[in-house]
Amino acid sequence: MAPGNLKKVLVLNAGSSSLKFKLFARSKGLSLSLESRGVAERIGDLKSAISFCDASGKQKNLSSQLGDHQEALGTIFNELKLSASDLYAVGHRVTHGSDKIYKASRITPEVKKIIVDTIPLAPLHNPVNLLGIESAEALLGDEVPQVAVFDTAFHHSIPPEAYLYAVPLKDTAERLSVRKYGYHGSSYAFLLNRAAEYFHKPKQQLNLIICHLGAGASMACIKQGKCVDTTMGMTPLEGLCMSTRSGDIDPGAVLFLVNKLGVGKTDQLLNKQSGLYGLSGFKDMREVLENVEQGDRGSELALSIFVGRVRKYLGAYIVNLNGNLDGVVFSAGIGEHSTLVRERICKGLEGFGIELSPTRNLSTKEGEISSNRSRVKVLVLPTDEEQQIAMETVSVINGLGDG
Amino acid sequence: MAPGNLKKVLVLNAGSSSLKFKLFARSKGLSLSLESRGVAERIGDLKSAISFCDASGKQKNLSSQLGDHQEALGTIFNELKLSASDLYAVGHRVTHGSDKIYKASRITPEVKKIIVDTIPLAPLHNPVNLLGIESAEALLGDEVPQVAVFDTAFHHSIPPEAYLYAVPLKDTAERLSVRKYGYHGSSYAFLLNRAAEYFHKPKQQLNLIICHLGAGASMACIKQGKCVDTTMGMTPLEGLCMSTRSGDIDPGAVLFLVNKLGVGKTDQLLNKQSGLYGLSGFKDMREVLENVEQGDRGSELALSIFVGRVRKYLGAYIVNLNGNLDGVVFSAGIGEHSTLVRERICKGLEGFGIELSPTRNLSTKEGEISSNRSRVKVLVLPTDEEQQIAMETVSVINGLGDG
Repeated sequence: MAPGNLKKVLVLNAGSSSLKFKLFARSKGLSLSLESRGVAERIGDLKSAISFCDASGKQKNLSSQLGDHQEALGTIFNELKLSASDLYAVGHRVTHGSDKIYKASRITPEVKKIIVDTIPLAPLHNPVNLLGIESAEALLGDEVPQVAVFDTAFHHSIPPEAYLYAVPLKDTAERLSVRKYGYHGSSYAFLLNRAAEYFHKPKQQLNLIICHLGAGASMACIKQGKCVDTTMGMTPLEGLCMSTRSGDIDPGAVLFLVNKLGVGKTDQLLNKQSGLYGLSGFKDMREVLENVEQGDRGSELALSIFVGRVRKYLGAYIVNLNGNLDGVVFSAGIGEHSTLVRERICKGLEGFGIELSPTRNLSTKEGEISSNRSRVKVLVLPTDEEQQIAMETVSVINGLGDG
Repeated sequence: MAPGNLKKVLVLNAGSSSLKFKLFARSKGLSLSLESRGVAERIGDLKSAISFCDASGKQKNLSSQLGDHQEALGTIFNELKLSASDLYAVGHRVTHGSDKIYKASRITPEVKKIIVDTIPLAPLHNPVNLLGIESAEALLGDEVPQVAVFDTAFHHSIPPEAYLYAVPLKDTAERLSVRKYGYHGSSYAFLLNRAAEYFHKPKQQLNLIICHLGAGASMACIKQGKCVDTTMGMTPLEGLCMSTRSGDIDPGAVLFLVNKLGVGKTDQLLNKQSGLYGLSGFKDMREVLENVEQGDRGSELALSIFVGRVRKYLGAYIVNLNGNLDGVVFSAGIGEHSTLVRERICKGLEGFGIELSPTRNLSTKEGEISSNRSRVKVLVLPTDEEQQIAMETVSVINGLGDG
């Protein structure tokens, strides 16, 4: 049990057969420190398991048959010796808020109804996010406030000319909700705040291009602290080349594939068998890079296409900002760790004021990797979506809005 | 009958129920002058008609029931008092050459087989292009050589990392031919040559972004005289917002629409009911612009989205060229005539060396519209795809290759 009223904040991210958590201790002020994190996997399977990792990095694995998300959460509570009285709040990652909700929000029947109503736009994610919420409610009752933090919320500032597709305005965009929403919102919110610290400036004075390059990859264009465009669209399939997702492809090619293979197989093809994996046979950029060194053609193509897509949007966003760019931020697995990918993305862009320092790009784990000459600051910043969710959760409960 | 051996060149562009033609007289050297042009419409219908226009602009309309393309062509020959002995060659616009043929080519059984084999990639166009070829063969016999000029050919120089989508390399890209091909090739070839004249430079020394903005709209990125990327893809649906085509849209949104509406209706929706028309109710940019002045919301969105998409690719291509851009070319209906669209596309791009002269942009029908300060020359150049087809046709027959 935490001392005084500085109780803990639990962040939950529920997947279809998994439940990730991070537990934060509140310190004085608003700062949060990670106490424990882990994930329950293969929920509903005979061989489910939970892994735990404490702040010192000590790991523990637990094999236990977990029938459902509630049982998984109950086991996590037991293991962490956690009860309702220890918790200040629970923050839930919710994928999709549609255009109805665009702030981190205390969970009420109305908020739950919006999450349910948005299921058609996120059929794989919103139902399990809701399962996470209901599991916590069942175990904790009314005693602990719960907050939903939406992955789409950060992109609410995108103007209509960027979030609309050129489809029938009333019948398709409005009635069927076919428009760009964008994802990775908590990551962008976190990185924007971190970048502002690096620049020693309020975020409202910053024009940034943020590259969240992980297994799922997207970019966001930030103008005076607000998102004005992002590469993911109505779904997380649009935009960059990802681990197994195709990203951008001619809609005519999608129709061609649907006519050839059917809609279910095309969905599988573009979401699960494409991207780096479809081109090279490897899902992980680290493996792709190893095989580039061996001269493997598919891996070289995968790398070139990945880099080419990032550069496509880098250019689009520099023009969107009329060239007034303060910084480029690289984050997430590939963005934080791949020197070569960053080098190839930034190659030849000196004319745009972007110049890497090869030594900084090689050695920097966090901070600036651009040369002293570079007009645009290029930063590597580790992201932490759960920390952002925890901070927004605390802000909501404290009545400070979405921070 | 033309004097001496300076016979005429006929260019045919066959559509599903239409047949466009332009007849050129060869002068000494390689130059061609337009003698007559026209179009047969509603072929196969009871109310078919042919319109003719001679070099002086004099129009003539002929109502005549035309059973098929051959009958239409026969009627055109009669009206123009044209026989096989007058013709040096016939050049045909053929939409798709796939990756098997990438030069203007004299029509042989092998070339026809490629056009047939490519029907799956251009099911609406290649069959009628072939009908145009066979109609001319039936009427002219072996006496007049015929040449196919492919709309995709100009884009053959695009490198694999730009023409490949991030889909399975062997099973989808190679086996199903799902890749970018690009269209409007004859227009780009014509405009590149014209731009080289304006720059007084060999085209191999030019880096250009060419914007072919008509009812169908696309852009091409030209590096040292060769196309390195274009916005249309496997089909002409990808890329910019067009008259009735959506251009880019999340592939996940396409799958969502197919699940909702079926594949046929989605195809119709994205190809025929989207674009400017879907957003504003108007297919023609002139009508959109008139309604922008009236404060119509849909028209303002249509214009903003149209402009936004062009700027997206302008940025992508400037980065592709590492900032080494010599010129931007505007062409086709909207590109040649809309001062406001060009102004909005180029707004705020002074940092990229692009600055319009407002007076030149307002009054120039052909030539430079950038200011004297502008590092990048911005040109308005009328396009003429048929003239290009005629020139390439003559080059092929003269054994000069594809010019």
